[in-house]
Amino acid sequence: MIGNPLLPEIRELIEQRNFSALQRIFSDWLPVDLAELISDLPESEQGILFRLLQKDIATETFEYLDFDSQQNLLTALTKKDVTHLLNSMSADDRTALLEELPGTVVQELLKLLSFKEFKIAKTLLAYAEDSVGRLMSPDYLSIKTDWDINQVLDHIRTYGHESETLNVIYVVDDIGKLKGELLARTLLLSLPEKKVSEIIDEEKLITLTAAQDQKDALDTFKRYDTVALPVVDSNGYLIGVVTVDDMLDVAEEEETEDIQKFGGIEALEDPYIDISILELIKKRAVWLVILFVGEMLTASAMAFFEDELAKAIVLATFIPLIISSGGNSGSQAASLIIRSLSLGEISISDWWKVMRRELASGLALGCILGFIGVLRVVLWAMAFGHFNTQWLYIGFTIGLSLVGIVMFGTLTGSMLPLLLKRLGLDPAVSSAPFVATLVDVTGIVIYFSVASMLLGGILL
Amino acid sequence: MIGNPLLPEIRELIEQRNFSALQRIFSDWLPVDLAELISDLPESEQGILFRLLQKDIATETFEYLDFDSQQNLLTALTKKDVTHLLNSMSADDRTALLEELPGTVVQELLKLLSFKEFKIAKTLLAYAEDSVGRLMSPDYLSIKTDWDINQVLDHIRTYGHESETLNVIYVVDDIGKLKGELLARTLLLSLPEKKVSEIIDEEKLITLTAAQDQKDALDTFKRYDTVALPVVDSNGYLIGVVTVDDMLDVAEEEETEDIQKFGGIEALEDPYIDISILELIKKRAVWLVILFVGEMLTASAMAFFEDELAKAIVLATFIPLIISSGGNSGSQAASLIIRSLSLGEISISDWWKVMRRELASGLALGCILGFIGVLRVVLWAMAFGHFNTQWLYIGFTIGLSLVGIVMFGTLTGSMLPLLLKRLGLDPAVSSAPFVATLVDVTGIVIYFSVASMLLGGILL
Repeated sequence: MIGNPLLPEIRELIEQRNFSALQRIFSDWLPVDLAELISDLPESEQGILFRLLQKDIATETFEYLDFDSQQNLLTALTKKDVTHLLNSMSADDRTALLEELPGTVVQELLKLLSFKEFKIAKTLLAYAEDSVGRLMSPDYLSIKTDWDINQVLDHIRTYGHESETLNVIYVVDDIGKLKGELLARTLLLSLPEKKVSEIIDEEKLITLTAAQDQKDALDTFKRYDTVALPVVDSNGYLIGVVTVDDMLDVAEEEETEDIQKFGGIEALEDPYIDISILELIKKRAVWLVILFVGEMLTASAMAFFEDELAKAIVLATFIPLIISSGGNSGSQAASLIIRSLSLGEISISDWWKVMRRELASGLALGCILGFIGVLRVVLWAMAFGHFNTQWLYIGFTIGLSLVGIVMFGTLTGSMLPLLLKRLGLDPAVSSAPFVATLVDVTGIVIYFSVASMLLGGILL
Repeated sequence: MIGNPLLPEIRELIEQRNFSALQRIFSDWLPVDLAELISDLPESEQGILFRLLQKDIATETFEYLDFDSQQNLLTALTKKDVTHLLNSMSADDRTALLEELPGTVVQELLKLLSFKEFKIAKTLLAYAEDSVGRLMSPDYLSIKTDWDINQVLDHIRTYGHESETLNVIYVVDDIGKLKGELLARTLLLSLPEKKVSEIIDEEKLITLTAAQDQKDALDTFKRYDTVALPVVDSNGYLIGVVTVDDMLDVAEEEETEDIQKFGGIEALEDPYIDISILELIKKRAVWLVILFVGEMLTASAMAFFEDELAKAIVLATFIPLIISSGGNSGSQAASLIIRSLSLGEISISDWWKVMRRELASGLALGCILGFIGVLRVVLWAMAFGHFNTQWLYIGFTIGLSLVGIVMFGTLTGSMLPLLLKRLGLDPAVSSAPFVATLVDVTGIVIYFSVASMLLGGILL
């Protein structure tokens, strides 16, 4: 964080208790900028500054704050202030805050809510984490099919202030079943005398359900290029609305998870810099130990070839070079296939097409590396003046092994994500380190098999 | 792609030339679903089906099609149809299409545009790829400060049909300078007699510029939770508008690039399944060769320790296990830091804090793996009945090396992205394979140094 250039000046004014100067400075600040400033202050000064804000600005600023500062303010403010704050926050932001706090604190805070807000909070908290239910806002505006546009406009002016979005308004029948949606665009373009029933299209309505995964909702938003989607229960009753601005956050979270998993680490729930070191170690140790135990097979495989190794130590010197090439090509293939799967560009049924592409790519890449490998061995031997036919054979052992190992790596990296998906698991688990570990063991077997074949009777 | 279950039926109707049945089927389809169906058809049948659609539905369907199908239709349709299509497409989607086509085709198509649309297309195409200019739409609605809400509503009903969004309307002065924005929400909630100047807030206006990077625009959208942002030139004149639905695509593209780079591959410009195998190989070969050449240093390092190797072949058998642990822990650290940097959770100035965290994590993780490593060596030797003090020393060599190598891997993985960023390069270049390669070479040196120290006089 770069920090606000005004920070020192503001901290001095806080120390001098010069509240009027502070209020003057803040009068034209946006809530998001106020929130950033407050996060940069020491905890003891956050409350002082926060209490200077107008009530409505304060609530909005609070919604933009990080969880640590929010939690600090909840303890620093009076009970009256906290009550107002919680009741005036938008339901989805409040749910996000309550999710982060310890259970006992949540119980305390829930008591401060009005009966109506308490019911909303409890409903939203009952949905699974990562479900659409946690994201949706119950603050939507609904209208009836038989109204005309003038009635709708009047209704909005009277009841619209609380609504999370006015870019879409929902049309329900007498018992609350969702019938259609009215975009602000359509509303603004329609003549005042038109009836709602004439301008909505019941057939083309896209909906979400509260139990659906947020990732699904993201896909639906992308597919239909829309600013808001209604959430219905299993009987088709409207229960909430999800807006597109929440989707950018979902997209960001999904991306973070994918990248962390691909790096071979359990997805973190908080920003890297906020998480405790102990948590950080736990999240990393699990996979690291699994990979380590898997990689132990390389030691067993090499012990199996110990006689060959003893006869030709020179073979050992090329092992890291050869097995890492398999890991690298596997990691490339995995990153391509994981991403294509997650974007829906390919599906499991495309496995044969993918396999053909990857076999061709693997062969070509293996030949390129193999050629460089042969060159390296032969030129080195010549440079050090001890070149003979034996070195030519070693060169070809390296080259041929590379072709095999790069092909195997490419195939493993591309097929593993598809296999995981087929088994109902997350393809992103086939991380770069995971693929590399799988390929390392096989790489050693391929290398020594090629060596036995080519060098039997020569070196071995 | 799963394909539409109706596809066989529809293809049969096309063969029978039963157009009325087809039109009946399509009457309640959404453009996005029509587009998916058309993409699934063979090229020769796409045009037939497309011509059955109503003109306005056809344009919208065309905007949802992939570039291959769009290009196919451009050749399959009559010149008159193409002219209508291009002139009625929204400017940002048309720009995206023209970007994909070869230069000569673009010249041909530009001739079909009306003078007004031609000017718009040319302006948008002149901005750099990945700039806000390419995303923005010139179809926005602007109003004057001295109008009242009733005048605004009238203006919208008359001129709003062409506007890309009506969720935000822009307020300009007499010479076109941007003065403020009027959200549909504010508009709908305001009384008809209110003046525009009374309800807009000039101070709190957020704008983009056409030359800005699309990634910047994405950050601004996330920060301010908004559905649209105005684009101004250097003098503050309004020249276009960017809507949030385009941002989901930008976010997706950024994520794809990051994951591919982290997998050690140059970012692809097209979906994996559409790119030619030759292109695929080229994108992968560059990094693979660079890494291979870098990894050659492991062979040199091992050649340097050939005497030690000859004396204790058993040391060689643990090399893959030991160096891969460094690579894995490095890849974990890199994925964490790259992502945190890209989300703005940490900046270069946090390097010291990051380093302390990573040293602590690396030490802990190294000790865990080191402990398992010692256990493995000692238990194995016992199980095979040839345990003696020598094996205990080997065990401690493995254990101590692991502590050192995991710490070094963690440090390299976390500091390299920060260093790259400091040098003005993309942190995502510190891919899993890149970090692993760096750590492999050092790992061998660490391992043999520890071995010389502990095993000197015993085995070596």
